[in-house]
Amino acid sequence: MIKVGIIGGAGYTAGELIRILVNHPDAEIVFVQSSSNAGNPVTSVHDDLAGETDLQFTAGMPLKTVDVVFLCMGHGKSVEFMQENNLPENLKVIDLSHDFRLKREGNEFVYGLPELNREAIKAAKYIANPGCFATGIQLTLLPLAAARLLTSDIHVQAITGSTGAGQKPTESTHFSWRSGNVSAYKIFEHQHEGEILQSLKQLQPGFDSDFNFVPIRGNHTRGIFVSAYTKYSGSLEEAKILFRSYYASHPFVVVSEVNPGVKQVVNTNKAVIYLEKHGDKLVIISVTDNLLKGASGQGVQNMNLLFGLDEKTGLNLKPVAF
Amino acid sequence: MIKVGIIGGAGYTAGELIRILVNHPDAEIVFVQSSSNAGNPVTSVHDDLAGETDLQFTAGMPLKTVDVVFLCMGHGKSVEFMQENNLPENLKVIDLSHDFRLKREGNEFVYGLPELNREAIKAAKYIANPGCFATGIQLTLLPLAAARLLTSDIHVQAITGSTGAGQKPTESTHFSWRSGNVSAYKIFEHQHEGEILQSLKQLQPGFDSDFNFVPIRGNHTRGIFVSAYTKYSGSLEEAKILFRSYYASHPFVVVSEVNPGVKQVVNTNKAVIYLEKHGDKLVIISVTDNLLKGASGQGVQNMNLLFGLDEKTGLNLKPVAF
Amino acid sequence: MIKVGIIGGAGYTAGELIRILVNHPDAEIVFVQSSSNAGNPVTSVHDDLAGETDLQFTAGMPLKTVDVVFLCMGHGKSVEFMQENNLPENLKVIDLSHDFRLKREGNEFVYGLPELNREAIKAAKYIANPGCFATGIQLTLLPLAAARLLTSDIHVQAITGSTGAGQKPTESTHFSWRSGNVSAYKIFEHQHEGEILQSLKQLQPGFDSDFNFVPIRGNHTRGIFVSAYTKYSGSLEEAKILFRSYYASHPFVVVSEVNPGVKQVVNTNKAVIYLEKHGDKLVIISVTDNLLKGASGQGVQNMNLLFGLDEKTGLNLKPVAF
Amino acid sequence: MIKVGIIGGAGYTAGELIRILVNHPDAEIVFVQSSSNAGNPVTSVHDDLAGETDLQFTAGMPLKTVDVVFLCMGHGKSVEFMQENNLPENLKVIDLSHDFRLKREGNEFVYGLPELNREAIKAAKYIANPGCFATGIQLTLLPLAAARLLTSDIHVQAITGSTGAGQKPTESTHFSWRSGNVSAYKIFEHQHEGEILQSLKQLQPGFDSDFNFVPIRGNHTRGIFVSAYTKYSGSLEEAKILFRSYYASHPFVVVSEVNPGVKQVVNTNKAVIYLEKHGDKLVIISVTDNLLKGASGQGVQNMNLLFGLDEKTGLNLKPVAF
Repeated sequence: MIKVGIIGGAGYTAGELIRILVNHPDAEIVFVQSSSNAGNPVTSVHDDLAGETDLQFTAGMPLKTVDVVFLCMGHGKSVEFMQENNLPENLKVIDLSHDFRLKREGNEFVYGLPELNREAIKAAKYIANPGCFATGIQLTLLPLAAARLLTSDIHVQAITGSTGAGQKPTESTHFSWRSGNVSAYKIFEHQHEGEILQSLKQLQPGFDSDFNFVPIRGNHTRGIFVSAYTKYSGSLEEAKILFRSYYASHPFVVVSEVNPGVKQVVNTNKAVIYLEKHGDKLVIISVTDNLLKGASGQGVQNMNLLFGLDEKTGLNLKPVAF
Repeated sequence: MIKVGIIGGAGYTAGELIRILVNHPDAEIVFVQSSSNAGNPVTSVHDDLAGETDLQFTAGMPLKTVDVVFLCMGHGKSVEFMQENNLPENLKVIDLSHDFRLKREGNEFVYGLPELNREAIKAAKYIANPGCFATGIQLTLLPLAAARLLTSDIHVQAITGSTGAGQKPTESTHFSWRSGNVSAYKIFEHQHEGEILQSLKQLQPGFDSDFNFVPIRGNHTRGIFVSAYTKYSGSLEEAKILFRSYYASHPFVVVSEVNPGVKQVVNTNKAVIYLEKHGDKLVIISVTDNLLKGASGQGVQNMNLLFGLDEKTGLNLKPVAF
Repeated sequence: MIKVGIIGGAGYTAGELIRILVNHPDAEIVFVQSSSNAGNPVTSVHDDLAGETDLQFTAGMPLKTVDVVFLCMGHGKSVEFMQENNLPENLKVIDLSHDFRLKREGNEFVYGLPELNREAIKAAKYIANPGCFATGIQLTLLPLAAARLLTSDIHVQAITGSTGAGQKPTESTHFSWRSGNVSAYKIFEHQHEGEILQSLKQLQPGFDSDFNFVPIRGNHTRGIFVSAYTKYSGSLEEAKILFRSYYASHPFVVVSEVNPGVKQVVNTNKAVIYLEKHGDKLVIISVTDNLLKGASGQGVQNMNLLFGLDEKTGLNLKPVAF
Repeated sequence: MIKVGIIGGAGYTAGELIRILVNHPDAEIVFVQSSSNAGNPVTSVHDDLAGETDLQFTAGMPLKTVDVVFLCMGHGKSVEFMQENNLPENLKVIDLSHDFRLKREGNEFVYGLPELNREAIKAAKYIANPGCFATGIQLTLLPLAAARLLTSDIHVQAITGSTGAGQKPTESTHFSWRSGNVSAYKIFEHQHEGEILQSLKQLQPGFDSDFNFVPIRGNHTRGIFVSAYTKYSGSLEEAKILFRSYYASHPFVVVSEVNPGVKQVVNTNKAVIYLEKHGDKLVIISVTDNLLKGASGQGVQNMNLLFGLDEKTGLNLKPVAF
């Protein structure tokens, strides 16, 4: 049994981790820390878990009692956590914030996108779990980068559900505003661009084309829909072979013949990829659940790899479908 | 031209008043007061009015420059307003809060439900505009009360859109929580019960049956759906005649032969009423827009009556329909 | 391994069965029959299953190859199925239609509500799976009926998601109509009333109070929200003890201290029950997922009981939560 | 009074025309033709009009009794109508289908985008009303084309509400499928591309850059959100001056300093345009209501121009806002 601690347990990503881990056959939650909720039952925040767990939020973080901790705090807090705590030698850390996603001197975290870095993840101690947009977008581009075929500008639009904006009620997550609404934000300036480009350059070192990204707020709760296109000189069939080959060993990525809707992956850790060719351009669609493949599901996928388990353990989740 | 002031101009009901009044042929907005937004354009809060108005929020309330003020502040603030201001002799006041809805000694406000009190409203100086649930529910019961036929327990369930909860983002108006969700609140204890019973007793003085009311939060933005039933010894046809006769002179109430959906009145000041008889019970459905017939639209309807205009002036609103 | 056949495999309830059974540790789907889709992959209809199954729809029904069949056809078709087929001696049948829910001479089906009939189900050969509204409503009333405390009129309103109306596109499931809409239908005349009253009389033979039921179409996809009330002379604490005691051995029913929203059970087989007392009336809320506890989840729960498995096997489903 | 006939009166665009025209001060609906609904009240289909009109659908089309007809039939039917009917000399025709949008020999229809062709519309007899995507997209590009600044590839993504798909229930408008869903369709192949390019070339004759368009199905009912970008060598301020100058005389187009959401124009005939500059690219956002500025509202705007009225007559519509 892998013993798990969760730090910052009241937010959406922590809730999803708990929902997955209460049914994970090889893991056991030892503590769920939350300063603001210490002493209360976990179900006081994550009410859908009523009947599933008797855990209470803790104030403390008994790091010695666990094999791995998930960091689910706000961006910036993970750096503080790593600096302020003397971590047990064998403790693994999976960080869901963006604090350690970008390579820089002294950053010991491996970027936790299994479809890019599976072997490095297996050997890692610390994992920087990718961002949600970053996951959905990279999955549309990795096979092209691996084949060094990204030689032209990339055009990406991606539409996210409201859970991407977190638990705190704000103007742009107010139901009266968001229901039936569509809007763009951080146009060409989204903070996930850095990790995306880093991955593309890892696979295709000389990559220097423009990356144009328009992020959109949709009026659904879960799911990221990505449409990307770039010039591609091969045929559609060649592209399908390229993508199928790249993802053949990656169990959560399905290259589909059918144009997908985002809802077909909601509540799963899957990504569905779909390709079309028009003129000289290859269009690639991906759909993922921003809280699962884009956050907590991928976190558990990484945990499975860190501990030598089958990648899918505990992640055969029933899609919500409707 | 009726000169209008709006006090508490940043909230939903003030926004709706402005949306109606910018196209009202016989009224003109002189000021829109908002402490927290003073100096900013009205469109900085009500962005859909871009291109419709150049008004700026004011800090002050130049009461002498207007014929009528709408009070759109939080509950409790209207009492303060009336106490702290020396109102010009001829100033009319339409209060959208619940502060003056209940009769008590010294309360000079007329309860502003035109379908109950039209003549009194015409002669009034101060109007207490009804609550949104209270409006939708009373419209299902007034004809029965007027005929003194409310002799048995009344059972009401009503489902409200999120705009009924106001502009401040909260847990229960968070899109991620509310989308696709249904929940009850203030079961049998909603604050609108007082004004409903007051009206029923006004029409049927001895009324003392139980009034059972389960309020529900729906996952739409606008509209209140009411289903009510009580024992009724007449036939369905007699009930229809009773309701049609009662509402014959009330232009915003339609007694329909077709079971309505709430959306068919959204963005209008209308109420649609529908009747069925089952066994010894009469079922009455009403649908209204909580922000219009349930708040600001009814406020303008009252203003029209106060100033001798046709009740519908400025209120021929295009339904959103979809 | 329980060998399973599904008949009428293209509809919503069949899809949900497949989604559950592909991960059920002790069951295996042998065939999924669908006349109109024979020869096509199951994922051509249930696209979210891409990557989860290679099954193809069959035209035939090889009944001898399975231990149990689920009947997922339209109402009326199950009667035909039972008449026209010579069933293998040991074949169990779980019927999701309403064809066999009402007791009558020659009806060998056991009514499959485990919280009412668990022991009979264990010993049964044929199961009539309850209706979705019927499940949600009965769970609010069974403890009272078992204690013979239903001595006064019962008032029920229940709001259902669109999946309750099935897969065929109709006017009332058109997105443009239903989004943001609320409407009532079959007021006091819903076809589930029969099975509800049958169960209440099973527990409380002399029951003869009025049962008043207003069904509502909500604008969500999954979930049934029930509010029920009736006179009850005990205290709230006594009621809670009564309900907790009744459901103590039933793992899918949670009696909660917190007023629930329907979404907290979506994509699970759970029911959450909540109680309030006001004056002489007890209010009981229940929330369930109409496709799971209200249909296919309960079907698998019944299958587990039929084959001597733990009731929860394969039904530890991750809630969608948002 | 302009006398109006509507042909194909049961669909969404006809319904919107009626909703506008019942309150238009200078127009009067003489007949609403619908073969399948002849003899029934208009409110039997457009139920939100209950209490607003007593019109009945007609089987016949008494063209001599009207000054203008709106053609609201399916695509292809308007060609038939023009061929099969001997139109009165002075009858104006406004066609909402795509039949006459593209210039070709013998096509006497003027393309009815007032922001492109206002003077030609005023002098026209027959108007081809633009498509909904086409309207929203052209409004992001016309000022650049007029200044002959479209010298590089254009990248467009646009998200439409479900009403764009019309009234007939289909798989992709089924509430259970579409709620919470996002999907692409007709990628790079949407039928509106022709009219868009025709307009761009009208203003900038040598235009021959690539036009890349990804259409998206959103999960709202009304509204089109367009994001477009292309290379632009000027500054953001210069772009704003260009757009403000182009639209200065067009009362329905607002160039905003604030990043808009689509809902702020829902139920209005307005378009809000918003600009950002990033690197060498100009990003242009537009939001419109697909049934109004994208269809029936623009139809009435064209009618106003045809008959010498102020362009906004009857089109001061209350936004739904929420």
